[in-house]
Amino acid sequence: MNALRIVVWNENIHESRGDEVVRRHYPDGIHTVIADGLRAELGADAQVSTATLAEPEHGLTETVLADTDVLLWWGHIGHDQVDDAVVDRVHRHVLAGMGIVVLHSGHYSKIFKRLLGTTASLKWRNARERELIWTVAPGHPIADGVPNPVIIPEQEMYGEFFDIPTPDELIFISSFAGGEVFRGGITYRRGLGKLFYFSPGDQEYPVYHHPDIRRILRNGVRWVAPSGPRFDLTAEPHPTGWFE
Amino acid sequence: MNALRIVVWNENIHESRGDEVVRRHYPDGIHTVIADGLRAELGADAQVSTATLAEPEHGLTETVLADTDVLLWWGHIGHDQVDDAVVDRVHRHVLAGMGIVVLHSGHYSKIFKRLLGTTASLKWRNARERELIWTVAPGHPIADGVPNPVIIPEQEMYGEFFDIPTPDELIFISSFAGGEVFRGGITYRRGLGKLFYFSPGDQEYPVYHHPDIRRILRNGVRWVAPSGPRFDLTAEPHPTGWFE
Amino acid sequence: MNALRIVVWNENIHESRGDEVVRRHYPDGIHTVIADGLRAELGADAQVSTATLAEPEHGLTETVLADTDVLLWWGHIGHDQVDDAVVDRVHRHVLAGMGIVVLHSGHYSKIFKRLLGTTASLKWRNARERELIWTVAPGHPIADGVPNPVIIPEQEMYGEFFDIPTPDELIFISSFAGGEVFRGGITYRRGLGKLFYFSPGDQEYPVYHHPDIRRILRNGVRWVAPSGPRFDLTAEPHPTGWFE
Amino acid sequence: MNALRIVVWNENIHESRGDEVVRRHYPDGIHTVIADGLRAELGADAQVSTATLAEPEHGLTETVLADTDVLLWWGHIGHDQVDDAVVDRVHRHVLAGMGIVVLHSGHYSKIFKRLLGTTASLKWRNARERELIWTVAPGHPIADGVPNPVIIPEQEMYGEFFDIPTPDELIFISSFAGGEVFRGGITYRRGLGKLFYFSPGDQEYPVYHHPDIRRILRNGVRWVAPSGPRFDLTAEPHPTGWFE
Repeated sequence: MNALRIVVWNENIHESRGDEVVRRHYPDGIHTVIADGLRAELGADAQVSTATLAEPEHGLTETVLADTDVLLWWGHIGHDQVDDAVVDRVHRHVLAGMGIVVLHSGHYSKIFKRLLGTTASLKWRNARERELIWTVAPGHPIADGVPNPVIIPEQEMYGEFFDIPTPDELIFISSFAGGEVFRGGITYRRGLGKLFYFSPGDQEYPVYHHPDIRRILRNGVRWVAPSGPRFDLTAEPHPTGWFE
Repeated sequence: MNALRIVVWNENIHESRGDEVVRRHYPDGIHTVIADGLRAELGADAQVSTATLAEPEHGLTETVLADTDVLLWWGHIGHDQVDDAVVDRVHRHVLAGMGIVVLHSGHYSKIFKRLLGTTASLKWRNARERELIWTVAPGHPIADGVPNPVIIPEQEMYGEFFDIPTPDELIFISSFAGGEVFRGGITYRRGLGKLFYFSPGDQEYPVYHHPDIRRILRNGVRWVAPSGPRFDLTAEPHPTGWFE
Repeated sequence: MNALRIVVWNENIHESRGDEVVRRHYPDGIHTVIADGLRAELGADAQVSTATLAEPEHGLTETVLADTDVLLWWGHIGHDQVDDAVVDRVHRHVLAGMGIVVLHSGHYSKIFKRLLGTTASLKWRNARERELIWTVAPGHPIADGVPNPVIIPEQEMYGEFFDIPTPDELIFISSFAGGEVFRGGITYRRGLGKLFYFSPGDQEYPVYHHPDIRRILRNGVRWVAPSGPRFDLTAEPHPTGWFE
Repeated sequence: MNALRIVVWNENIHESRGDEVVRRHYPDGIHTVIADGLRAELGADAQVSTATLAEPEHGLTETVLADTDVLLWWGHIGHDQVDDAVVDRVHRHVLAGMGIVVLHSGHYSKIFKRLLGTTASLKWRNARERELIWTVAPGHPIADGVPNPVIIPEQEMYGEFFDIPTPDELIFISSFAGGEVFRGGITYRRGLGKLFYFSPGDQEYPVYHHPDIRRILRNGVRWVAPSGPRFDLTAEPHPTGWFE
């Protein structure tokens, strides 16, 4: 098997403007910590690179995407700055087979809403409260080797109702100290591509350093990786017996 | 539309042996409180009766079931005392179109496990802790008019992993003060019949007096009610063009 | 219960430009035949009106949509002529609770692709061949009273792979004389709204005069009808204990 | 990765009593052809053995099952001869994580009905007619490398309504020359185990020699293979904070 070609995308706004609380945990950007985690977990099975909003075409040119098996997406306050043409391009590649992992506040990104068709709205609160991640699909590859529950000492709260389509697979449900729950680990198939959304991971907390979270991201990347060739789906006439 | 013919079944063991804490909330049995709630909610739309374990054939004769649109099932410590022949009969009627609502500890009943095929195991703790019921399918008829969240001041805890098949529809997720979560409001289709499982409702707490719980049971009964005639599904040979 | 307020939308291009084969079955437009069918099936339970592409704002102003419980959508060769602002508006109303039924070639409409996030591509052939519609969810309200199979003597073929998200519910699967199959009766929940897609109904065949098809459309309209009030879902901060 | 330990189970009644038409394609039993196919497809990745009804405990002792990753099940006219104790044992192992692939007429086996909870009834006809297998989940690993459609020149017809729970994943839909359709490639999760049902494969036709069918069985075996350790799920009390 060839090495998985992974690109970790980050808007990198909090970090580049010097938010102190963010830079404490992510001095070189959230993307570098996620990328390092994947390199450590996947070793020679993966080639991991990064891309950010500030790069030309946000670092997601046609050439880059054509050579990407799995794209991870972290965004928060810069969703509106993402060029629609780039969103169109990512969308097309996912439908043609590229895997995508959308992280945390990426629920409000253009690409997530484009793929799902809903508002992706939710309830939230930033109160340094404990999040517990419960596995409800223990036989699923994304839950492989993951403790039940995973304990995150401090996190932002994301709560229901989360306006998403019924997930194809519901793998993790989070609870928060304040009592809210959240469908925080979910999968979808779209076209020939697969999507994994995973909610833990706010910029103010060291979530992406957590070994269980790294394990989940590793599993998620593997699960969304394409199992066949990439091609565009089109509507075409087919004469009777075309398959014979 | 004819009135829904509803039967509330209860093993009625805690109550009949005089458990004090149970009799405080359910002096005439859990089934009578549930039945009264449905009568109050549904009025002339329903004819509600009850049946218990101690009756001949547990009150669930062929005649009774043939005249029942929706059966509610509450059991706890008497699951093993339920006759397999009665379970077979209920199973057959559900597959032929009768609706069934399984309540709380009924997750371990023979009929629930027969319909689902899994162990139905879960984590539990009886510690008088707050349960919050979160709606994750707000457009579903079973959630109609239900506050989000429903607050139950004291309840037994049921926690994941709950060993059930992937629900056809996940409507409610509960969280508990201790941090656990539970897929406590779920639906399944089996044969021509429909199943709604709803977890809140331990014998030691006045849950079935709670107006929001009564509303949910009303909605659930309506949802599982059959929409067509009842008949057994069989495997039969069909010559080419039999449908022309 | 108040009467359902239904709007049947049709691009009405084939009809208004005088395509002979279309005008034979639909002299006053496909929308009028569908609307008449719904009036006949639903009687006093419904108020049915129509709207077309040529009207200002395609007849789908904010006022009209705010007063619509269920919108039916038929389009084919004019998808690109539908104003994006109107698509945005319909999208918002569906997510806020309005029901929508998308018909036949409407699979390629902007609103269908917006709600689902995929290409909606498929295989097709117009060869006057028999379509059989098989019910695979016989207990579902949309299948109520529908023969299994429904026989349509002549139809356009729509075949798999149909690029759609996994349906929430798969109700009908069609087969065609040429051997293709199609997931032609499917439902989705999006936000607070519900969607039913139903594939039979090409402009060249009298499908919407077929009594079984009328029955299915009636059932579908009822199923997507909202069960609660309409409102926009938004993301908002919630302090700890906001629900107490 | 260790080699997958696979057991192909066959009632082996048609073959052992000398049915001519069966022995023509399967002189040493259907199980040997399936096993040979898996060996050819999986090579060193698998250790494939067989077991049959006539063996003590049908060849499925506790020791055998404890050492089995994936069990394939072919049965037809001997379902009633399968010992309930063996069915209980297989059921327990599947819920604890063992994968299972149920084939063709195995839809009526005790283990299939036990795992699914429905009658598994269907329509059928043995008329040597063409079956086309259409992929409706092209990104799924079970569809990897499978032509769309697969063409089987002659087969028994299995038709809807197939009385099964809503599949977790619908991968293949078959059509038959007579016009029927069938959900013939489906998956379910049960406990920690995974189930793949695949309908093509009657004893009178050389289906298990077909290269595309062999590919599908290979993919299915890999998909149901466990991804974690095997253990029994039980209901146990958990004190507050047990996970800290």
